[in-house]
Amino acid sequence: MVDVVISGTVALDSIRTPFGEVKEVLGGSAVYSSVAARGFAKTGVCSVVGKDFPKKYLTFLNTMGVDTSGVEVKKGDTFRWSGFYEYDMNQAHTLDTKLNVLAAFDPKLPDAYRQSKYLFLANTDPEVQMKVYKQMKKPRFVMMDTMNFWIENKKEALTKMIEKVDAVVLNDAEARQYWETPNLVHAGRAFLDLGPKAVIIKKGEHGALMFTDGACFSAPAYPLEKLVDPTGAGDSFAGGFIGWLARTEDISPRNMRKAVIFGSAIASYNAEDFSLNKLKKITRDDIFNRYMIFQDIVSF
Amino acid sequence: MVDVVISGTVALDSIRTPFGEVKEVLGGSAVYSSVAARGFAKTGVCSVVGKDFPKKYLTFLNTMGVDTSGVEVKKGDTFRWSGFYEYDMNQAHTLDTKLNVLAAFDPKLPDAYRQSKYLFLANTDPEVQMKVYKQMKKPRFVMMDTMNFWIENKKEALTKMIEKVDAVVLNDAEARQYWETPNLVHAGRAFLDLGPKAVIIKKGEHGALMFTDGACFSAPAYPLEKLVDPTGAGDSFAGGFIGWLARTEDISPRNMRKAVIFGSAIASYNAEDFSLNKLKKITRDDIFNRYMIFQDIVSF
Repeated sequence: MVDVVISGTVALDSIRTPFGEVKEVLGGSAVYSSVAARGFAKTGVCSVVGKDFPKKYLTFLNTMGVDTSGVEVKKGDTFRWSGFYEYDMNQAHTLDTKLNVLAAFDPKLPDAYRQSKYLFLANTDPEVQMKVYKQMKKPRFVMMDTMNFWIENKKEALTKMIEKVDAVVLNDAEARQYWETPNLVHAGRAFLDLGPKAVIIKKGEHGALMFTDGACFSAPAYPLEKLVDPTGAGDSFAGGFIGWLARTEDISPRNMRKAVIFGSAIASYNAEDFSLNKLKKITRDDIFNRYMIFQDIVSF
Repeated sequence: MVDVVISGTVALDSIRTPFGEVKEVLGGSAVYSSVAARGFAKTGVCSVVGKDFPKKYLTFLNTMGVDTSGVEVKKGDTFRWSGFYEYDMNQAHTLDTKLNVLAAFDPKLPDAYRQSKYLFLANTDPEVQMKVYKQMKKPRFVMMDTMNFWIENKKEALTKMIEKVDAVVLNDAEARQYWETPNLVHAGRAFLDLGPKAVIIKKGEHGALMFTDGACFSAPAYPLEKLVDPTGAGDSFAGGFIGWLARTEDISPRNMRKAVIFGSAIASYNAEDFSLNKLKKITRDDIFNRYMIFQDIVSF
């Protein structure tokens, strides 16, 4: 039995930033978000890897307390992404994406996952997200992420998925693109009209906005002077967010605001090193310490 | 005797946005900031206009309670700016700038201004800013703005000015440009090393950051769903900020945080209509109402 189920990618990433370079390291949306959630709740991953996937990475996830019984090992190679960041770090530049085994991913949730109350559908094909969603018995809170590719190519399936979930989390460019508006307030409120109770728009170095019925919450970014690698920031944010909701069993808008800050705190740690190098080290105390700094940052 | 002195431009603006178009309307940095400050403190403007400047605009400023005895009327034409905004409203596109009488502006402060404790040097040539500064007897709090042109062309004079002031207010692109860094935290802290006690970086739709000794304050933008004209947003922000400090006679970092929110509240009203059309109508109650909404927006 796990408290939080996360479906998404498990990847081998090759990344270059002005602060260094790593090759074939552990990455992927489900990895970042599950390691971020693990401090708060028992988390299980639903994904697929190839036969080439290093066993040490699955072992690593298990030692982090992440359940990997939903990670299927299939014939073929693991999903790979390589990219780089310029000095401004705001935009990932993709050099190469190899879907490999992910291309034919047909998710099957272990029985131990289906009873879970919290589900995060990290960015993947919305039809795959729907397949995962339908296997859940009676989730209490479902959140989804998406990306420009699905907005451009599968908007109908994506919209059907949005109508089902309790919360949408996506970045500012995606929100503007979906609604063809430059105004994030307009975009946020329009998503609510589709059904979700909360819409969280991630703005990178500018923090995040959360829209709930009649209210807008603005969360700052943690003022990092040195950002080493932003990869996985959005996913660790989402993982920390849903982990906090599961831990407290409270999905009220008030508690979701706290969850946004916990997610932001964890995401800020994540950006301080490559891959999971920082996330694997932080304790719940570290997270609470940064939470309290956030309180100071916004207080007036 | 005035409480706040503001030096800067008085302009005739012609502006087009997706929501309309105006021609030869009252504008300029000193105008927006003094009308924003007037709700809190007696404000005087130091600037120059040409003989063509409509008397009704000076009368308007006076009925707003703004002292214009420091506005010199010189032979020639008034400073003019014309520009437009695309639908995203984040960037002003300049069509034409005619400096006219502003080109030879040699500021002379009326005696009634020189004793003031609060000075805002709105964006102009840093050498002109220095001339204004030197005419003040013993100001308690001096704040300055600047722009890309001076960073590129008069960096030395600009830096000398920065070293004198208590606070610098500028936008994110300018902060990055001055320090040649993409990282605003780095830029903000570097400005503090030059002498100012506070640095406020305006980020438009993303709010503002204020750096003071050892602390960072993040203020959200007011979530405006319809923004009619962003012209003067930064100046009305600065005017509201220094007006609040003058009103409370409190320049502590804690009170500066409140001033940032008051400035943001006033700037958000300003963007709801062209020229001073909205700013001239709002009451102190309106400002306090929006201040309280800001409290809700950031609370978690």
